[in-house]
Amino acid sequence: MEGNKIHKFAKKLWPIDRSITGPGQKKTLSLIKEINKNLKIKKFKSGTKVFDWKIPLEWRIKDAWIKNSKNEKIIDFKKNNLYVVNYSVKIDKKISLADLKKKLFYIKSRPDAIPYVTSYYKKSWGFCIEYNKMKNLKDEIYNVKIDSSFSKGHLNYGEILIPGKSKKEILFTTYICHPSMANNELSGPSLLTFISKWLKKRKNNYTYRILFLSETIGSIAYISENLQRLKSNVIAGFVVSCVGDDRGYSYLPSKNGNSLADRIALKILKKNNIKYKKYSWLDRGSDERQFCAPGINLPVCSVMRSKYGEYPEYHSSDDNLANVVTPKGLNQSFLLYKSIIKEIEKNEFPKSYYSCEPQLGKRDLYPTTSFHNSFSKHQKLIKDFLSYCDGNLYLHEIAKKCKSSLTEIKKINQLLKKKKLVF
Amino acid sequence: MEGNKIHKFAKKLWPIDRSITGPGQKKTLSLIKEINKNLKIKKFKSGTKVFDWKIPLEWRIKDAWIKNSKNEKIIDFKKNNLYVVNYSVKIDKKISLADLKKKLFYIKSRPDAIPYVTSYYKKSWGFCIEYNKMKNLKDEIYNVKIDSSFSKGHLNYGEILIPGKSKKEILFTTYICHPSMANNELSGPSLLTFISKWLKKRKNNYTYRILFLSETIGSIAYISENLQRLKSNVIAGFVVSCVGDDRGYSYLPSKNGNSLADRIALKILKKNNIKYKKYSWLDRGSDERQFCAPGINLPVCSVMRSKYGEYPEYHSSDDNLANVVTPKGLNQSFLLYKSIIKEIEKNEFPKSYYSCEPQLGKRDLYPTTSFHNSFSKHQKLIKDFLSYCDGNLYLHEIAKKCKSSLTEIKKINQLLKKKKLVF
Amino acid sequence: MEGNKIHKFAKKLWPIDRSITGPGQKKTLSLIKEINKNLKIKKFKSGTKVFDWKIPLEWRIKDAWIKNSKNEKIIDFKKNNLYVVNYSVKIDKKISLADLKKKLFYIKSRPDAIPYVTSYYKKSWGFCIEYNKMKNLKDEIYNVKIDSSFSKGHLNYGEILIPGKSKKEILFTTYICHPSMANNELSGPSLLTFISKWLKKRKNNYTYRILFLSETIGSIAYISENLQRLKSNVIAGFVVSCVGDDRGYSYLPSKNGNSLADRIALKILKKNNIKYKKYSWLDRGSDERQFCAPGINLPVCSVMRSKYGEYPEYHSSDDNLANVVTPKGLNQSFLLYKSIIKEIEKNEFPKSYYSCEPQLGKRDLYPTTSFHNSFSKHQKLIKDFLSYCDGNLYLHEIAKKCKSSLTEIKKINQLLKKKKLVF
Repeated sequence: MEGNKIHKFAKKLWPIDRSITGPGQKKTLSLIKEINKNLKIKKFKSGTKVFDWKIPLEWRIKDAWIKNSKNEKIIDFKKNNLYVVNYSVKIDKKISLADLKKKLFYIKSRPDAIPYVTSYYKKSWGFCIEYNKMKNLKDEIYNVKIDSSFSKGHLNYGEILIPGKSKKEILFTTYICHPSMANNELSGPSLLTFISKWLKKRKNNYTYRILFLSETIGSIAYISENLQRLKSNVIAGFVVSCVGDDRGYSYLPSKNGNSLADRIALKILKKNNIKYKKYSWLDRGSDERQFCAPGINLPVCSVMRSKYGEYPEYHSSDDNLANVVTPKGLNQSFLLYKSIIKEIEKNEFPKSYYSCEPQLGKRDLYPTTSFHNSFSKHQKLIKDFLSYCDGNLYLHEIAKKCKSSLTEIKKINQLLKKKKLVF
Repeated sequence: MEGNKIHKFAKKLWPIDRSITGPGQKKTLSLIKEINKNLKIKKFKSGTKVFDWKIPLEWRIKDAWIKNSKNEKIIDFKKNNLYVVNYSVKIDKKISLADLKKKLFYIKSRPDAIPYVTSYYKKSWGFCIEYNKMKNLKDEIYNVKIDSSFSKGHLNYGEILIPGKSKKEILFTTYICHPSMANNELSGPSLLTFISKWLKKRKNNYTYRILFLSETIGSIAYISENLQRLKSNVIAGFVVSCVGDDRGYSYLPSKNGNSLADRIALKILKKNNIKYKKYSWLDRGSDERQFCAPGINLPVCSVMRSKYGEYPEYHSSDDNLANVVTPKGLNQSFLLYKSIIKEIEKNEFPKSYYSCEPQLGKRDLYPTTSFHNSFSKHQKLIKDFLSYCDGNLYLHEIAKKCKSSLTEIKKINQLLKKKKLVF
Repeated sequence: MEGNKIHKFAKKLWPIDRSITGPGQKKTLSLIKEINKNLKIKKFKSGTKVFDWKIPLEWRIKDAWIKNSKNEKIIDFKKNNLYVVNYSVKIDKKISLADLKKKLFYIKSRPDAIPYVTSYYKKSWGFCIEYNKMKNLKDEIYNVKIDSSFSKGHLNYGEILIPGKSKKEILFTTYICHPSMANNELSGPSLLTFISKWLKKRKNNYTYRILFLSETIGSIAYISENLQRLKSNVIAGFVVSCVGDDRGYSYLPSKNGNSLADRIALKILKKNNIKYKKYSWLDRGSDERQFCAPGINLPVCSVMRSKYGEYPEYHSSDDNLANVVTPKGLNQSFLLYKSIIKEIEKNEFPKSYYSCEPQLGKRDLYPTTSFHNSFSKHQKLIKDFLSYCDGNLYLHEIAKKCKSSLTEIKKINQLLKKKKLVF
């Protein structure tokens, strides 16, 4: 079961101290490259202007802890990288409990979980702590230390390009900027790594581009450099995030709501009899925010398992590889995305190779002797089908026009593909 | 009555041994040329690739018969060219009744009719026979002979071009490949021959192109050579077939269903209070299959009498000039197509010659003295009408917008044409 | 109250002998220029061809009267310039009552009013007279005199351009060709004079162009010279006529019916709880006839008080500044048009300055620390709003998409404008 391999790979990525820049990102990408050598590791320089944003300085963190008056480490970054607010500035001082509490983040409703907190663009520092631990802190003087640094460096990203017969691209994007969290981070890149491995072994009709980006800033940077090509080549795209648990399915539409990506996603969910929660564009939260933004408007939607923000372990240490992300969940998602790709590869928008009607008789698709209505209903349907193969109608739309069933039309589509009459 | 002349001309064309190539086609075209010298006889060479097809070898047939053991001709091609499967290969042999029956085509439900059968693209032979004759055949040895040959030659077609003020073209197409059948063959070319004669005597706004083609292969060949021009110039087209009986009317839409040709056809049918059967694109069967095919999509529909495949005599010797096609039927169709042309020539999509309102007063269309509401309702309507003459609205659509009747709007259109305000 | 000033200015314009050309027009424009020096007085030469029309000769009139046999002036142009048919040719002769009556215009239903009559394009002469006066005329010989002349000259028009941040233009047009009438003439130019004065003191987002034209011929001439620019720059326009009485409101749509101008007008009428009569394009009667004509089709509609042709005093001496046009009516219209302009200036069609999402944190619009759902509903709404700022959706349409209220969305629009995120 591929799910086991993906889960194992996610475990390998788990301990890495990821952020939107820095060595954790590079390390993550190099591990992905071990699985798929096609990955190219690329970068944007700190300070580069990308639309309204600037690539931030690289953040590096060596250590961080809180010690109590007995010099005991009550918080230790080395035990869990979520303990420190991501992008915290250097700090090393003694501090009262009252002052310390102002710098602590915790989740009362999940008293044993460490929350995930970031402060990328405002210089700040803080710790994330289990609520149960926090409420038992004594009123004493604490020693807090964060050994972090900022330097000019790079935002890295990974890109896998798998060329197909057509230059038209299918885009898959995921993010590699969250530290040790499972569903809302590792499930995406782990799944896409194995999807890419599977894809490259296939002969594909379409070109596939798989992007491993820092969420938001990475996507914005990528779009700012590639907008022209994205606009002309991408016919469908998917933001792949939160694809590792086995509790349910979610669909979040593109802004347009009826793009090719949406129609593909909905068709596959229906085809596989998958019950899913249909979210609206207003529920969006990942990189579809950028890919569908004003001025961009690409055909990009998102098919997920439990959606970010909607499951209890989200953005906390509880979002782990033991209880949330499972081999079963990853395997189901792997199958689902394979199913999506296979469907795309089936060419759901059949286009006739020939102008005018093709010659069916010589391909055993029509009687060679014309005698009254000697053609069968099926043969008639083949002709009707072909008459609609303009490349802009979906199989189910053609079925409706032909007053036929989707099953029948799909059979004909397969048959005519085999006969090299449509692609 | 023009119907008599057309019927007489159809009779002249009747005995010719037509097929999709060969001397019968040339003979047919030369007789049409006698009526309208504007006809140009053109050709495609055998073996020429046209889209997915190849122009076939020329088929010639000298004789064909079946003799019984008493040497009596029980089937004689010279008596009716439908007796032989069109494009049959040469044969000359003795054959048992059992084997003969495998090569016989007949229609049980029309026991005295010879069916029409072809096998253009697969080498084969066969005979068509009356059911009553077939069932009385004795169990003896028969002598079958078909004296046919294949050779490199041409597929011929005829083209009549009648230039008008505008380069925009109205296309009429029909076929000249069926042997002795009346409604589903001769009615089309006979009618269009006389339509073309009538058209060339007129001064026309639009350019008319009339094509006499072999069905399917002829149209495909023509389109493959003329697609660019067809796409840019043809604003409406009609496949003219089955226009000779007097039993009813049929309309078969273009694939688009709402092309200019469709709207013109429907308007004329309505205008003339003609009851007609409305078919769907799925019921198509003639050259609209090519003119509306993927990659072609021209504005071409079909207005017929009893539609091919829908009347009992179809594709048999019963489809004749005595019982099926009548002078009356041909005359009605002649009137109908004249009516269509006249309607086109009326410029149903009025376009103002001027930007802004034209000056109506100096043309006696509006009071020159402006005194309260001294203009009449009619004068007001003229202004309303003109305000909609963008060249993309049909008279009845303008009528609706003006809350007026089509009659009234037509009068105004005529008036303003005369006044050189719209065209 | 601005209405008083506008009314006073209208009084100043009242006695001028206006026509579609001539000194009255120049005089009118020079008085407008006294209020707003930005006005440029421009002209078209007599005889200039403009689309289907020709700029007419200039008409000048010194005096005109009818004297009875006792040499008493029973009609005196100097008392009211409506007494003479506008563009009357020179005449000086004795005439019987019977013949005189053929040249008299009167309104039986308004027995004490002088009608307004013109004959611009056909050489003619005539007098307009009160019905009560006419019916008491004795059967005697009258002396009629019109001291008018025609000469090569100009059609004048006024143009005020108030540039804004954007080159996109809002167009206001009115006419300056009717003699002493109040609602259906002076209300328009008087109002726009003061609107222009108010506009030029503002810093505007959009460019405003205000045109004082002879109705019909002036607009046609202007359009013929400026069509290219009008087509590319004008995003909304309004024909400002009949805006002086205080009896009700009217809205006459553009030909398209759903142009930006229409939507702005309807939004403001609704916003101000104004009850109005909605006319149709068929009820049009002023320069929207030209601005929305075939080949022109600009986004121009009309918001009026009592519409021309629909109030009893229309086109007569009863349409005066005492009983019809009131300071209150003018003031209400002034407020309404200010309201329309203010709404336009609010940029109802927000467009993001940035591709992709802008960085909200650095602008204090979003938490800089990302901790669970630490963003507020309001902050979420900001992001939703921004995602729809493609520049083609109206605030209320965005509100609907965001499932928010217009009030809320307007607040956000204002906020983001201030933050230079949308314009």
